[in-house]
Amino acid sequence: MATQRILDFLATRRPNGPCLVLDLDVVADNFRAFEKALPQSRIYYAVKANPAPEVLRLLASMGSSFDTASVAEIEMALDAGATADRISFGNTIKKERDIARAHELGIGLFAVDSVEEVDKIARAAPGARVFCRVLTDGEGAEWPLSRKFGCVPAMAVDVLRHARSLGLDAYGVSFHVGSQQCDLSAWDRALGDAKRVFATLANEGIVLKMVNMGGGFPTRYLKDVPVAQAYGQAIFEALSKHFGNNIPETIIEPGRGMVGNAGVIKSEVVLISKKADNDNVRWVFLDIGKFGGLAETMDEAIRYPISTVHDGSETAPCVLAGPTCDSADVMYEKTPYPLPLSLTIGDEVLIEGTGAYTTTYSSVAFNGFEPLRSYVI
Amino acid sequence: MATQRILDFLATRRPNGPCLVLDLDVVADNFRAFEKALPQSRIYYAVKANPAPEVLRLLASMGSSFDTASVAEIEMALDAGATADRISFGNTIKKERDIARAHELGIGLFAVDSVEEVDKIARAAPGARVFCRVLTDGEGAEWPLSRKFGCVPAMAVDVLRHARSLGLDAYGVSFHVGSQQCDLSAWDRALGDAKRVFATLANEGIVLKMVNMGGGFPTRYLKDVPVAQAYGQAIFEALSKHFGNNIPETIIEPGRGMVGNAGVIKSEVVLISKKADNDNVRWVFLDIGKFGGLAETMDEAIRYPISTVHDGSETAPCVLAGPTCDSADVMYEKTPYPLPLSLTIGDEVLIEGTGAYTTTYSSVAFNGFEPLRSYVI
Repeated sequence: MATQRILDFLATRRPNGPCLVLDLDVVADNFRAFEKALPQSRIYYAVKANPAPEVLRLLASMGSSFDTASVAEIEMALDAGATADRISFGNTIKKERDIARAHELGIGLFAVDSVEEVDKIARAAPGARVFCRVLTDGEGAEWPLSRKFGCVPAMAVDVLRHARSLGLDAYGVSFHVGSQQCDLSAWDRALGDAKRVFATLANEGIVLKMVNMGGGFPTRYLKDVPVAQAYGQAIFEALSKHFGNNIPETIIEPGRGMVGNAGVIKSEVVLISKKADNDNVRWVFLDIGKFGGLAETMDEAIRYPISTVHDGSETAPCVLAGPTCDSADVMYEKTPYPLPLSLTIGDEVLIEGTGAYTTTYSSVAFNGFEPLRSYVI
Repeated sequence: MATQRILDFLATRRPNGPCLVLDLDVVADNFRAFEKALPQSRIYYAVKANPAPEVLRLLASMGSSFDTASVAEIEMALDAGATADRISFGNTIKKERDIARAHELGIGLFAVDSVEEVDKIARAAPGARVFCRVLTDGEGAEWPLSRKFGCVPAMAVDVLRHARSLGLDAYGVSFHVGSQQCDLSAWDRALGDAKRVFATLANEGIVLKMVNMGGGFPTRYLKDVPVAQAYGQAIFEALSKHFGNNIPETIIEPGRGMVGNAGVIKSEVVLISKKADNDNVRWVFLDIGKFGGLAETMDEAIRYPISTVHDGSETAPCVLAGPTCDSADVMYEKTPYPLPLSLTIGDEVLIEGTGAYTTTYSSVAFNGFEPLRSYVI
């Protein structure tokens, strides 16, 4: 996944220390693939996945809309050239003063999952459109979401009814099938839930207009994943099945699927050692770890492809750890990672598929290590 | 644990957004308590726990030495007024160019746990003193350390012998009994291991001089912990038992124990809601979470005391979560946290015992939220 442009950049620029290099051509290809796969859906890029200004400007210029989590992300999207009508405030947890600020900036589309949040929006952004997030079971996702966001469908009906009663535009329903979702039927189950909310409210004269199908579109790490086209097909079939000829406006919010495979982290082997003479597992320590950008290795959830100059030669399992004095800063231990036996201290390694959820997860300065640098090319 | 000075600061300054307020008087008290409890040991403050310049300057002025994890932390300690002979490069994972830089800055004491690291130090910091970290079992610690640091005692003998053969000063042994260690006998077991390394090498004419007893000294969260005096007593007895009349130079490296109880995070309730009408657990969302400084709630490891203006009134269990659009940003869910039923959106809460391992763990800008601000008073 390291493109020739990334390899050329690293070969000529030779940046010192760990860094992410992100290839905008791949982002552009991904955007076009989503457009082609889901031609009827509006694409709201999940800014939190990678808010680099170059990425936001590219996507704004290609016609993308933006899913934002905070006032700061709204401002970044505006700075990148998006108009306010192309920005959604997609966090269900918002301070009332942040809602008011978003309203001032012209934002008119807000996520909710509780009557309490609806109350805030009614006060701070009167008349706005709101969509209510419903809980899904997350089955089939490599990283199922917790119950943090969303409410059960029956409560979503109450929430949207309450929104209407306070003069808001009860606009639709959203869901998220779980991150890195590889089971295409997950969208079918969630769309079934969404349709039931539509139907119940329609009986009361409240006509919802939109389904926000969230993210969950996977990027390729070590295993092959279905291509965007397969998702598009499965989603279109599920929409037709549940909504018939009356398919609502739809939104998707790819983050990882838009930028994950566009980035590569260059790292250096700091130490290779053993804990005892009779250990058969080497410990390999890199100059980047859980606190320097690889937070998603938490619980060994995401297993990044790693390439070295010795690839093709004999490998053996390693525990892979980061450079900090923190014993939790270990990426892969329960399932050791196979790396070449000839790997040496000082070698460069490329951690692939790291364009999403790396730079901004990076800690400010834990152990005195600077945050992950990023080059967008 | 919120001191009157902290409460006064919050009442008069009313800072907007989440922040840490750290009371230097408490740090000074802690330093004096360690001095009194372990009068024969040199105190190396673990800079990574909280590298605020005010903390480092205070401790430097009181005579503390410093345990550092990177060149940046060495420079911070020097800037705070510590001389190079009071600074140890305590990370066992170092780039050779960072060792060379430390050597240039006058640092002469380095941690190792492998022959590979010894080789680097022999090249980049010839003649330096090295101490080898041995693995301990971590039993009794609230947060036992992984096997990331240290090697088995038999290998430590090889590592120190190798150091001597390359012209380094084989200076001693270090261990770490695990973070927030409340079992006083843990030091006894580790000192027994250390003594065996001393004895084996003495037979070869290599006389070690120092035992670095690391950190692990707890701070009080929800449960009472033994006081510094009790640790001092237990450690002195273990030293006497294993080393008799020939007690070596000793070092301790408190981090959490020095600053943990000196800090309080002020946060705000952003949302209180339920996922379904029949849920009996409320979800309480704060404006700070795992990515804003509370990383140590990972796996619900550390349970911070939380105080509210409603304390004393009836409580009920809550799931406690942070403000980001990340489903992993949940602090307490497996063991819900009891909070007052009268808690309301917009209320201020104080998260106590947060002086250590918060500000620098904070992410750069995840979801657009700024890193945790810190006020040292």
